[in-house]
Amino acid sequence: MDPLKELQTRFARAARIEEAASWLHWDQSVTMPNGGMLARGEQLAVLAETSHTIIADPEIGNLLAKASIQDDKWHQANLREMKRMHIAATAVPSNLVSELARAKAKSENAWRLARRENNFTQVESAFEHLVKLSREEAAALGEAKGLSPYDALLDQYDPGRRSCDVEVVFERLQLFLAEVIPQIVEQQGSWPSEPAIRADAETQRKVGRKLLQTIGFDFEHGRLDDSLHPFSTGTPEDARITARWDAADALSGLMAVLHEAGHAAYTRGQPATWRSQPVGAAAGMTAHESQSLIFEMQAGRTPAMASFLAGILKDAGCTASAAAVQRALHAVQPSYIRVEADEATYPIHVILRFEIEQNLISGDLQPHELKAVWNDQIRSHLGLPAPDDRDGCLQDIHWFDGAFGYFPTYTLGALAAAQLFQAAEKEIGTDNLHANLKNGDYSSLQGFMTKKIHSQGSLYASSDALIEAATGEALSTTAFERHIRRRYLS
Amino acid sequence: MDPLKELQTRFARAARIEEAASWLHWDQSVTMPNGGMLARGEQLAVLAETSHTIIADPEIGNLLAKASIQDDKWHQANLREMKRMHIAATAVPSNLVSELARAKAKSENAWRLARRENNFTQVESAFEHLVKLSREEAAALGEAKGLSPYDALLDQYDPGRRSCDVEVVFERLQLFLAEVIPQIVEQQGSWPSEPAIRADAETQRKVGRKLLQTIGFDFEHGRLDDSLHPFSTGTPEDARITARWDAADALSGLMAVLHEAGHAAYTRGQPATWRSQPVGAAAGMTAHESQSLIFEMQAGRTPAMASFLAGILKDAGCTASAAAVQRALHAVQPSYIRVEADEATYPIHVILRFEIEQNLISGDLQPHELKAVWNDQIRSHLGLPAPDDRDGCLQDIHWFDGAFGYFPTYTLGALAAAQLFQAAEKEIGTDNLHANLKNGDYSSLQGFMTKKIHSQGSLYASSDALIEAATGEALSTTAFERHIRRRYLS
Repeated sequence: MDPLKELQTRFARAARIEEAASWLHWDQSVTMPNGGMLARGEQLAVLAETSHTIIADPEIGNLLAKASIQDDKWHQANLREMKRMHIAATAVPSNLVSELARAKAKSENAWRLARRENNFTQVESAFEHLVKLSREEAAALGEAKGLSPYDALLDQYDPGRRSCDVEVVFERLQLFLAEVIPQIVEQQGSWPSEPAIRADAETQRKVGRKLLQTIGFDFEHGRLDDSLHPFSTGTPEDARITARWDAADALSGLMAVLHEAGHAAYTRGQPATWRSQPVGAAAGMTAHESQSLIFEMQAGRTPAMASFLAGILKDAGCTASAAAVQRALHAVQPSYIRVEADEATYPIHVILRFEIEQNLISGDLQPHELKAVWNDQIRSHLGLPAPDDRDGCLQDIHWFDGAFGYFPTYTLGALAAAQLFQAAEKEIGTDNLHANLKNGDYSSLQGFMTKKIHSQGSLYASSDALIEAATGEALSTTAFERHIRRRYLS
Repeated sequence: MDPLKELQTRFARAARIEEAASWLHWDQSVTMPNGGMLARGEQLAVLAETSHTIIADPEIGNLLAKASIQDDKWHQANLREMKRMHIAATAVPSNLVSELARAKAKSENAWRLARRENNFTQVESAFEHLVKLSREEAAALGEAKGLSPYDALLDQYDPGRRSCDVEVVFERLQLFLAEVIPQIVEQQGSWPSEPAIRADAETQRKVGRKLLQTIGFDFEHGRLDDSLHPFSTGTPEDARITARWDAADALSGLMAVLHEAGHAAYTRGQPATWRSQPVGAAAGMTAHESQSLIFEMQAGRTPAMASFLAGILKDAGCTASAAAVQRALHAVQPSYIRVEADEATYPIHVILRFEIEQNLISGDLQPHELKAVWNDQIRSHLGLPAPDDRDGCLQDIHWFDGAFGYFPTYTLGALAAAQLFQAAEKEIGTDNLHANLKNGDYSSLQGFMTKKIHSQGSLYASSDALIEAATGEALSTTAFERHIRRRYLS
């Protein structure tokens, strides 16, 4: 038995089980009737336990020891990823894995109901249990990886990322934003006041499909559905996205479509040779968010795309000038909802979540205090009065689904997106690229990203290394700052 | 470690993995884009292999030996079912299990395309491979169970059922049908010729939902969707059905809805105490089909239901008198499509499939000969000229999805349905029951079936024993013959 082959077989098996779990998650968010929730939790718990058992098997350690010398850099990276996964899996006992899966399903379900009822207390007890288990998981992972509990979680979403580095970047970003946001807001004070573009859900769905078709989303290998919280999931063969439609603001749903389509493009573009192997997967969530934000923020809000969007909205009976669409896409204003925030105030949403989740995991903050702290932070960071629970601490699914250490990757992804988009402009030619976007044609942009990011899988040990290889520069705030000044202050 | 507890844990784990697989199947038939098929096959193969490994584990044999003495009849039956499953699992090598899962996914996909193109040759090679593997599986199962290969498959769908017994029943049925069908057809010759009730898909979906709500289908614990071939799947918490809508014949889709709702009622009514244990599952496919046919054929085509259906169709803008609906539901006529056949000619569809599939498994018939033999059989059994492939040998998904030994249970289920429905009339009171049906109220009927069938899980060793316990009589053609004479010749 060739140890390398055996490792590949075992990790492929775990990957297929995780794919199955991702379809059960998709179903849970898109189609499952409420009554199915507890049984779904059990199904997911058994799948989580099964893939965990495969990867934590001590025999994997033996095989890794035997297989560790390889010439090819892809094989090397594959073994590196296997090792990383094996260490993380052995750190967490199998019963904690399945308990966490159950707790996630329960808490997510309670969140759905609590959000509908606009009442944080309805999710409190399920959330408390989930936080308790997440702390246990974080402590166990931290022990095995030699990291603090929070950093151990962060490392699961973005290998190599540490909170101390994130803090440095976020501090610099806060200073920058504190300087430019007031200037932008003042400059926009002279804009005409315009009503948002309204459209019923059916019209928006139609425009959303048209938009996807134009940018190259392949409906033979994907779907667009409705869900409470937009997301994307799937495999290179079947990459699905969801959206929600706000009748009072048609652009909001279309931007979510672009965002999720960016994720789906990454998933579709993963290297086929390494399908179902660890090195064939995406390089963590900072890289993933960079792709969604390139689709949504970098390309999606250019004057060229504003003009294209005005066109397809007009075809669907929603008349708005390209200039009005562009103003709507560029309006900067502190607001409550992260996923609908403009790109200048968006990092503030992430920074306050980053602080809160670090305290939730360290134990400095207790789950039942979340609402009060949230409302304080909204006041201090965004200068807004306390929101409803629905638009406040219940707005995001992440924590209630057990995703702690994920939020920072949104803003790191925004920095990477700016850097990668500017690199794409250089390679494709700025005029060419924007001329394509005027027709909703993302192909040159997507081609660049597929070559530099998607097809690279997890070849690099960190998203920083991947982005540096793609752009020639280390990840920093420079490109993002340039982008904000160019778009909003020139 | 208590061997009984350990067995229960292991079989529950396998059950949850099979539930996960059933949702992936649902997704494949209802939502999955075509491009996802090969990856789906891999996911299903790994899940099949995983649950197979759990059940075939030699340690299960040891645990069964240690745990085999139990006072409680449910525990006894649970151990009996575990043993049955373990013997079947150990008979089939694990790589054949996963190969079969892959071959099923490929053949099913090829069938979808071939059916769309109306061209049997397009599925031929995938089907040939599937038949080859199914023969291997049947031989291995037969060896372990001491049965012929075909009987070993039949036994998987309906424990204890043997083809020699089926043949006796089917021969008697053929004689009966050869006598009554010409009489019925002659009697119906005087009926007015009426156009079928037409309705677009959207209207039919609306009426279908209304029908489901009235008969007590709980949309908090189930769904209705469209698919190429109507089916039902799920768990007690989430029992889903699908239908297809023929614009030229609105009753056809509604009858499929009733049929699948009968399956879903069985699934919903399984004993909660034994959830995810072998004894908690349905008692094989003859019992399952009896429930769908009680909903569709026995209750669904009574004059009372004809009047109710005329009412909800009228509300949706499709005017037809109760008498016309009843004539449409009672029309007996040899025809091509099994799922749309009347209940008098339906058994003929099954009998010809029973013959063909026995020969496919024995090797007396080769897969590429299927179309020719099919068309011969249609001519000799039903007196009809050769159909299109789509309405001929490609009409059913079963064989192309690897289900050999399943078809006889439809007609055995029809016999059981008649017997059980007559027992329900006796217990509820014929007039009461039919008065309820006049309002589309299935609750008394479903209550009887839940008590006698659904809640009994796999407590009995065979569907014959279950039906005898429920009706006081051994399963036979008597009740069915009485039913046909009463409905069509009185």
